[in-house]
Amino acid sequence: MAVTCADRRNRLRALLADTDLSGLLVTDLVNVRYLSGFTGSNAALWVSTDDPADDRISTDGRYLTQVAAQAPDLTLIEGRDVWRTLVDGVDGKRLGFEKHVVTVVQYDAADSDRLEGAEPLVERLREVKDAGEIELIARACAVGDAAPAALVEGGAIRPGRTERQVARDLEWAMFAGGGEAIAFETIVAAGANSAVPHHRPTDAVLAAGDFVKIDFGSVVGGYHSDMTRTFVLGEPADWQREIYSIVAQAQRVGCAALEPGTATQDIDAAARQIIADAGFGDQYVHGLGHGVGLQIHEAPGIGKLGTGALRAGSVVTVEPGIYLPGKGGVRIEDTLVVDDDVRSLTSSCRELVVL
Amino acid sequence: MAVTCADRRNRLRALLADTDLSGLLVTDLVNVRYLSGFTGSNAALWVSTDDPADDRISTDGRYLTQVAAQAPDLTLIEGRDVWRTLVDGVDGKRLGFEKHVVTVVQYDAADSDRLEGAEPLVERLREVKDAGEIELIARACAVGDAAPAALVEGGAIRPGRTERQVARDLEWAMFAGGGEAIAFETIVAAGANSAVPHHRPTDAVLAAGDFVKIDFGSVVGGYHSDMTRTFVLGEPADWQREIYSIVAQAQRVGCAALEPGTATQDIDAAARQIIADAGFGDQYVHGLGHGVGLQIHEAPGIGKLGTGALRAGSVVTVEPGIYLPGKGGVRIEDTLVVDDDVRSLTSSCRELVVL
Repeated sequence: MAVTCADRRNRLRALLADTDLSGLLVTDLVNVRYLSGFTGSNAALWVSTDDPADDRISTDGRYLTQVAAQAPDLTLIEGRDVWRTLVDGVDGKRLGFEKHVVTVVQYDAADSDRLEGAEPLVERLREVKDAGEIELIARACAVGDAAPAALVEGGAIRPGRTERQVARDLEWAMFAGGGEAIAFETIVAAGANSAVPHHRPTDAVLAAGDFVKIDFGSVVGGYHSDMTRTFVLGEPADWQREIYSIVAQAQRVGCAALEPGTATQDIDAAARQIIADAGFGDQYVHGLGHGVGLQIHEAPGIGKLGTGALRAGSVVTVEPGIYLPGKGGVRIEDTLVVDDDVRSLTSSCRELVVL
Repeated sequence: MAVTCADRRNRLRALLADTDLSGLLVTDLVNVRYLSGFTGSNAALWVSTDDPADDRISTDGRYLTQVAAQAPDLTLIEGRDVWRTLVDGVDGKRLGFEKHVVTVVQYDAADSDRLEGAEPLVERLREVKDAGEIELIARACAVGDAAPAALVEGGAIRPGRTERQVARDLEWAMFAGGGEAIAFETIVAAGANSAVPHHRPTDAVLAAGDFVKIDFGSVVGGYHSDMTRTFVLGEPADWQREIYSIVAQAQRVGCAALEPGTATQDIDAAARQIIADAGFGDQYVHGLGHGVGLQIHEAPGIGKLGTGALRAGSVVTVEPGIYLPGKGGVRIEDTLVVDDDVRSLTSSCRELVVL
């Protein structure tokens, strides 16, 4: 049976039962969506520790029709300031709140005697995806996965075109393939720009000899995909072959290290070691990966400073890179489901493709 | 001479001089971009009250090349947790912080003896646009403004097509016209869906007799456009003519009320009165408008509960609507520059267009 929003609220209730909170005031909009189904831009949710019938949602007049359609099982309290509407509108002596979300102004404006900061409980639930979520991420990944092949086949990535043109082609391919939105600002970085990990596409013209790094994703049913590929225009130079092959090996090692129960720090370290051993440790300036779901970046983080272990049912990226400022860079990234069998949801060719 | 980010920081310094703060820790990413030019996804900025040379920016390793290119005039402090990096890294006894942005967790993690909550000072600066900003908003509006005409001309809005198809066409038209991104989730709402103010496009099929409401915008140079038009498919019914004409009149009255110095509440009231007098006050469920700039919604709000007066140099929307649940709704929205001469940046036909 498909997991419903009511099921998710009950799972949150089980976590709340281990606290001394009367319930949780959920104000992060992604968490509200996860727990209620409501996708409007102004909402907050109360999940009671003891009584499901006491759960309620607050939004404003613009969304009355929408909230009734998307969250018919929840009692509505209408209000423009949804935070204060809920704080004033629910009973309970110890109202848990998302202290990583609520601002100092919001905190000060509410009756703080009843408020008690809570850990990111909903994020903890969201880390483990249910079958319906994995299905949506897989669909988003399929939309993304088809795009580079379409561009390569159509000759869209070639000298003379601009980064921006290639980015637009990628995005249109994903829309045409059924994506409902672009997952994040598409990265197309050519030549020396490929050494900038998060380069924004410019009018820079692709030239023979360039690395072209594309990092992009699609959205299906609110769920994201994320992948990176790096191509080379024309015969690769030795340094290009070298760093590509190191990154590809690090990426394979990182993927192989994804086992439920493994410390995320150790997963990062396994891939990082490959790059460090090859002498490029200082040119790999970011973490190995991150969770993907209703947000493009979510728990768990897989990096040097990560804490905790990988959980079965999580969906994460593995994306090592080497960046040589002024010359160029390589990153290879897939999105994978972690379970007893780890499965990559993106499968475009990971070898160095010469265009 | 064009206004630079350094000029903007000096304007902030002038506001800070009226406080007892040593400077302001800026953590809102849009504010960071406004004051520094840096567009990365992790950054914070310190603007000193007394000494421009003490200003500094913090970001992490992924963005070193980018920050050097975009904010070459600012001293960099590298760190992953940019908030704590700055709090620990700057001198001063009274560090102002954006209390409407900083979360309870961030506040608790820092040395709170030195921290002092500040009003939204940067938002106050951003409310008055400089010439370069107005130029970018005008370009974004021109991209948006061209889209409905292109769709109408190409026959894209007709019975048999879906809301989603029309939304995609609108977005593609804006990309083709030079927009760098979509300003917000495009709204295409047909038939009874048009009564939902913020409807998301579905596979619902447009039918003869439907209102089709489109609300959409483009982004150029980081600046947004925003506009809404409502069409009717085939000969309009009497109720459709009636509510369209009331909304159109309210929109004209609202635009005419945009004068620097007028209380925003009074501007809202002027347009609202037209709709209330016609007996549809309860079917107009949102404010009249909002500022537009680096964000799609920013200061000033123009609504029932608005405080303060309209300022010369602000750019705002005027967008009254009437929504009849189960039947259909109308909204007409333009984006305008407020000055001694008020000028609309969007000019697509505001009459009831029958398709």
